[in-house]
Amino acid sequence: MLTSTKSKTLATPAALWQILRKEAETIAAAEPVLTSYIHSTVLYHTTLEQMVSFILANFLDSQATPALLLREIFLDVMNCEPQIVDQICRDIAAWYERDPACDHHLMPALYFKGFHALQTWRVSHWLWLHGRQTLAMHLQNRASEVFAVDIHPAATIGSGIMLDHATGIVIGATAIIEDDVSLLHGVTLGGSGLHTADRHPKVRHGAMLAAGAKVLGSIDIGKSAKIGAGSVVLIDVPANNTAAGVPARLTPAKNSSDN
Amino acid sequence: MLTSTKSKTLATPAALWQILRKEAETIAAAEPVLTSYIHSTVLYHTTLEQMVSFILANFLDSQATPALLLREIFLDVMNCEPQIVDQICRDIAAWYERDPACDHHLMPALYFKGFHALQTWRVSHWLWLHGRQTLAMHLQNRASEVFAVDIHPAATIGSGIMLDHATGIVIGATAIIEDDVSLLHGVTLGGSGLHTADRHPKVRHGAMLAAGAKVLGSIDIGKSAKIGAGSVVLIDVPANNTAAGVPARLTPAKNSSDN
Amino acid sequence: MLTSTKSKTLATPAALWQILRKEAETIAAAEPVLTSYIHSTVLYHTTLEQMVSFILANFLDSQATPALLLREIFLDVMNCEPQIVDQICRDIAAWYERDPACDHHLMPALYFKGFHALQTWRVSHWLWLHGRQTLAMHLQNRASEVFAVDIHPAATIGSGIMLDHATGIVIGATAIIEDDVSLLHGVTLGGSGLHTADRHPKVRHGAMLAAGAKVLGSIDIGKSAKIGAGSVVLIDVPANNTAAGVPARLTPAKNSSDN
Amino acid sequence: MLTSTKSKTLATPAALWQILRKEAETIAAAEPVLTSYIHSTVLYHTTLEQMVSFILANFLDSQATPALLLREIFLDVMNCEPQIVDQICRDIAAWYERDPACDHHLMPALYFKGFHALQTWRVSHWLWLHGRQTLAMHLQNRASEVFAVDIHPAATIGSGIMLDHATGIVIGATAIIEDDVSLLHGVTLGGSGLHTADRHPKVRHGAMLAAGAKVLGSIDIGKSAKIGAGSVVLIDVPANNTAAGVPARLTPAKNSSDN
Amino acid sequence: MLTSTKSKTLATPAALWQILRKEAETIAAAEPVLTSYIHSTVLYHTTLEQMVSFILANFLDSQATPALLLREIFLDVMNCEPQIVDQICRDIAAWYERDPACDHHLMPALYFKGFHALQTWRVSHWLWLHGRQTLAMHLQNRASEVFAVDIHPAATIGSGIMLDHATGIVIGATAIIEDDVSLLHGVTLGGSGLHTADRHPKVRHGAMLAAGAKVLGSIDIGKSAKIGAGSVVLIDVPANNTAAGVPARLTPAKNSSDN
Amino acid sequence: MLTSTKSKTLATPAALWQILRKEAETIAAAEPVLTSYIHSTVLYHTTLEQMVSFILANFLDSQATPALLLREIFLDVMNCEPQIVDQICRDIAAWYERDPACDHHLMPALYFKGFHALQTWRVSHWLWLHGRQTLAMHLQNRASEVFAVDIHPAATIGSGIMLDHATGIVIGATAIIEDDVSLLHGVTLGGSGLHTADRHPKVRHGAMLAAGAKVLGSIDIGKSAKIGAGSVVLIDVPANNTAAGVPARLTPAKNSSDN
Repeated sequence: MLTSTKSKTLATPAALWQILRKEAETIAAAEPVLTSYIHSTVLYHTTLEQMVSFILANFLDSQATPALLLREIFLDVMNCEPQIVDQICRDIAAWYERDPACDHHLMPALYFKGFHALQTWRVSHWLWLHGRQTLAMHLQNRASEVFAVDIHPAATIGSGIMLDHATGIVIGATAIIEDDVSLLHGVTLGGSGLHTADRHPKVRHGAMLAAGAKVLGSIDIGKSAKIGAGSVVLIDVPANNTAAGVPARLTPAKNSSDN
Repeated sequence: MLTSTKSKTLATPAALWQILRKEAETIAAAEPVLTSYIHSTVLYHTTLEQMVSFILANFLDSQATPALLLREIFLDVMNCEPQIVDQICRDIAAWYERDPACDHHLMPALYFKGFHALQTWRVSHWLWLHGRQTLAMHLQNRASEVFAVDIHPAATIGSGIMLDHATGIVIGATAIIEDDVSLLHGVTLGGSGLHTADRHPKVRHGAMLAAGAKVLGSIDIGKSAKIGAGSVVLIDVPANNTAAGVPARLTPAKNSSDN
Repeated sequence: MLTSTKSKTLATPAALWQILRKEAETIAAAEPVLTSYIHSTVLYHTTLEQMVSFILANFLDSQATPALLLREIFLDVMNCEPQIVDQICRDIAAWYERDPACDHHLMPALYFKGFHALQTWRVSHWLWLHGRQTLAMHLQNRASEVFAVDIHPAATIGSGIMLDHATGIVIGATAIIEDDVSLLHGVTLGGSGLHTADRHPKVRHGAMLAAGAKVLGSIDIGKSAKIGAGSVVLIDVPANNTAAGVPARLTPAKNSSDN
Repeated sequence: MLTSTKSKTLATPAALWQILRKEAETIAAAEPVLTSYIHSTVLYHTTLEQMVSFILANFLDSQATPALLLREIFLDVMNCEPQIVDQICRDIAAWYERDPACDHHLMPALYFKGFHALQTWRVSHWLWLHGRQTLAMHLQNRASEVFAVDIHPAATIGSGIMLDHATGIVIGATAIIEDDVSLLHGVTLGGSGLHTADRHPKVRHGAMLAAGAKVLGSIDIGKSAKIGAGSVVLIDVPANNTAAGVPARLTPAKNSSDN
Repeated sequence: MLTSTKSKTLATPAALWQILRKEAETIAAAEPVLTSYIHSTVLYHTTLEQMVSFILANFLDSQATPALLLREIFLDVMNCEPQIVDQICRDIAAWYERDPACDHHLMPALYFKGFHALQTWRVSHWLWLHGRQTLAMHLQNRASEVFAVDIHPAATIGSGIMLDHATGIVIGATAIIEDDVSLLHGVTLGGSGLHTADRHPKVRHGAMLAAGAKVLGSIDIGKSAKIGAGSVVLIDVPANNTAAGVPARLTPAKNSSDN
Repeated sequence: MLTSTKSKTLATPAALWQILRKEAETIAAAEPVLTSYIHSTVLYHTTLEQMVSFILANFLDSQATPALLLREIFLDVMNCEPQIVDQICRDIAAWYERDPACDHHLMPALYFKGFHALQTWRVSHWLWLHGRQTLAMHLQNRASEVFAVDIHPAATIGSGIMLDHATGIVIGATAIIEDDVSLLHGVTLGGSGLHTADRHPKVRHGAMLAAGAKVLGSIDIGKSAKIGAGSVVLIDVPANNTAAGVPARLTPAKNSSDN
């Protein structure tokens, strides 16, 4: 069970933005090697979305889609869909509250590739829904290369999501992830091998999937359920239950990993 | 069991090339952000090998081995060994037929890092067999960095191979993979800890290894066998059988993942 | 059980440096494509730490922390803490002695991302201990991106360490790894989900953790213990014992993987 | 005397922007190699200043001042000082009207380094006047490197300015250039060797300075005056007069160069 | 008058190619820092055009037109128009015979930006004549940025051309340069300010234009004529005559510069 | 005549280094966009040569000779020949004393391409004299590309040299430049067209060559002589005399340019 000792994060973009700026000022003053990076990445901007689009563009830069263009695309999508900015706030709060190694709010945005991959997905998902499938897939695959996280743009994902460490996470096209879910590195929400239209898991509110868990097929991981590390889950897991093992069985025990 | 609803791909390079060009024209017209990329990557060329060598060189570019030089090396190897081009065709067909998320033939070549890692291996394998071990290893390790897929250049791999999602795949030096095998992300064909000359698995025609499976030692995964996600396989698996679990046991059930 | 047929490596930096130079001369003469790379990476230098800092800086180069600056930081840290150079020597020896695919001493330094990630950690750990936490975390996360290996700068790690293949390795902040330990790709030394100060495993001298093993919580993996591939370990493992399975149980059998 | 056969350009930013977009559509359709470049450079944007800031940032990108940051600085300056956008319009018109090799309005913005250097100066001049001298000088010297045009940020320059070919142009800190002036490559508005506060030329409305002319000291080049190629001018030149020679003398003849 | 003490270069591409390879082998053996560069630039290839296209692509690489694509375009143009390869041979011979600082044949191709700018023009000129004006102009302006040499793609230029030092050379759209002409840095073949169709100089066989000479208008510089450094030429210069001064007058004296 | 109102710079490397650091601290505090650049370029280092080698390596970085290697070469040369560091000090002092636009000592090192080209020459000259002609020429030509300044590595140049603005400067192999000479942009110390061994000018102590001056042949520009802008000098100029015109004649008048 996760027991956060940190206070809840203010989740409005404007309030969070002020927190982020203060943290950035502290870092910029303390570490001259990174002062200009912090300045151009955080302090130069006036909104959260300016910061996030700047950071993502920098990471995903390639000859096919240069940073300058990506930045503009990302900012435009966030302007068209302001809900994305709220979701980013809740994602940052999720990391701050659930990850013991995350002791300031800037860390996900500056450093965590799970965060970067998730926000890249938010943009690619919007593009996918608005007739830009080719560009959406381009971003999916660029993120898979850069962050080693592969999320299909057609997947459905809520907010307050933490993708911790993140290397090797795979999320299929018909997967659904509700709010406040945590996924650790190596988690797969995959297909069962059937070529059906709906073939990926549905993960309900507040569930926690530990490192390396494979959840396969259109099954249901219930609200606040926990999936043990290294498990292979082929069955529904009811709310508040824990499943573990290969194949996974319901169990009162827990073996989740948080970092 | 994989049940493809898509028609079989024409497997000659010339025929496939025409299909790829038509798809490229559609994409280039639909997404201006990517028009020039599609043009320079696909439409500018006149053969499949020109396209693939161009794409790989772009991905593997580094100061030690710049893209311009890599492209020439890749093209030269494919010219020396035209069989590689046939194998690439069958690999593209494998993805198109087996991966429900792959709905046009260009996707592996443009986007899938498992495809890129596999074709890099095809070149490095040829170099390994022709006295260029140092360069072969250089490419192996560059691919491990860029694609997070680590295939020893001395391994033996057939065609019609799909490395889906691909992050974390490891294939040892004495492994053998026959035609039409599918490997998902996180699959290891590793050693058993003995420092013997022959120490890695042999995977026979049409086998399917689901996400995260570890297959260790010089054992035999039989024709059309299936290995469950997250399994650790230390024993031979007969043809058409399924093995699953940690350690894996033969089982009539299946829990394969396909994306 | 690992049975090395290769002779023990001379572990003093000066002696190893002479071996590395001779190997480099052989490679440089044999492969003109790589001659200048080998020259600038190895032969141009006069000490081991010059070579390693040069290589790491090249890999971790980014706009925020350019190679020229990183090189200077790395070299300065190694000069302040010469013990790091001894540890690098023993790490190189570990690979040479334990990895059958490693047949010359230059391979880890030139090619193996597990080696690169480990030495990046050595520098980031020193920075962490000397009041440069921000820069230490910057390096941690840059290494996670470039090498897909995520080691917290606060972790404690000895020497003679082999991180083979390395993709997906995660090591938490309060983990301890003693000398001569081997970790394969996908190994996690993670938390148990409790937000306690001490929440990660202690891995004792000479232990071997096979591919994909998840070791969770502040438990003890005893001296020369072996952890099977794909295992999920939630209990202490006594010295010289083997643990395997999900969850792992003590067992006389072994299923370790070595590449 | 310049005799333009091309119609006068509409000089409002909005009107010019429509012309530029139409030209861009024609080019993008005609040359697939450049389609995406034209798209991301011109067609993706909605205002002239978005386009120009995008182009300049791309050219001036360096590790010290990366493109993403430069773009934001440039756009911010143009938003603070909308007059710059009007001046850019008139500069584009100047090229279109006076340069026989410039047959569409996009050419200066896409291709002419004299235009790029001039607009970089417009931004650096604003920074210079607003307390950012260090950044202003950084841009001056970056432009000198990239475009081989060296304009001091403290200089005063009007609009409708054409810097044709532009290699080697040098303009000192106390120089004044009024509207509708043309300078060809190699023109110097330099000092006379005296270390006085005001030590550079004043070039009045509509003057034309041909290739390689050196104009030195705080002298006056009158309205619509012409300075011959290769001249060295040390005296005032009255309005509508032509000066030529080394040292330059007033002359009824003309030997101006236009490309 | 130029008095070469070096023997005449064999001007067939195949013969020159053998000379270049021998020189490259000598350099590659002597300077390890450059061995791989020489290998990938010269020794890896089998024809002169492969080498030249490789070198040019490397220099002109940009996000809009990446090196991999440029290389292919350059090679394709040279294959369509083999005469370009003959012209390149004669250009190399021109440098070797006329430039005292050029003591091996590889120097122009490896090092001299005048050579690089000239060969870029050869390709852009072909594109201009074959309906690719936009791409031709793109290359012109890219060369102006990278080499500080601005040659209009519509100009007409023979072979055996030396552009020594080359910074600041400008050649207008209707200029004609016959075979065996030498131009030094800062030479302008510009317009006279009239917006007529034919407005640039015609430079006849074997003429020599010294550093900084400005030749303006549709005038004729006769066979083997010499133009003095810093001259401004507004009149025809008969064959075998020398012109010098500002403005230039015919003179028996010489003041040409050769490096 | 140059009349400096600034006090003489302390010319010992250690004293100058303290001045540079203080200036750097002021800039770093004032302009956050450049803080990290100033830190990594100046403040991180402990000697003048560390700073200069860092800056030059950054500018000259290319695939053939990457920054990391160049930095090491430059530092090694300066360590072998400490006199170079003294010369750099005197060059910085020259700019500070003679260039009215240079109001702090850091400006040449951070910003002025004439300074960068000159120090690149200092290194290439040492390499030329020590059997590394190929690498010396490589640096010459890289500097010609990056800085548009072309100085033959065999030339002989003293200290206290200012190359102001610098675009288009060309200095031939047998030229000699004594201490305290100033050259402005476009100055050529070229050959007279004769292929003799000694064919370039000798410029004596304290001479000043204004913008665009062409000095040709093995002639002598005497101590403290001044050459007018745009002049073409074919004759010896005695000490303390001024020469101007095309061709230049001795004159009591002055028309020098200083920026």
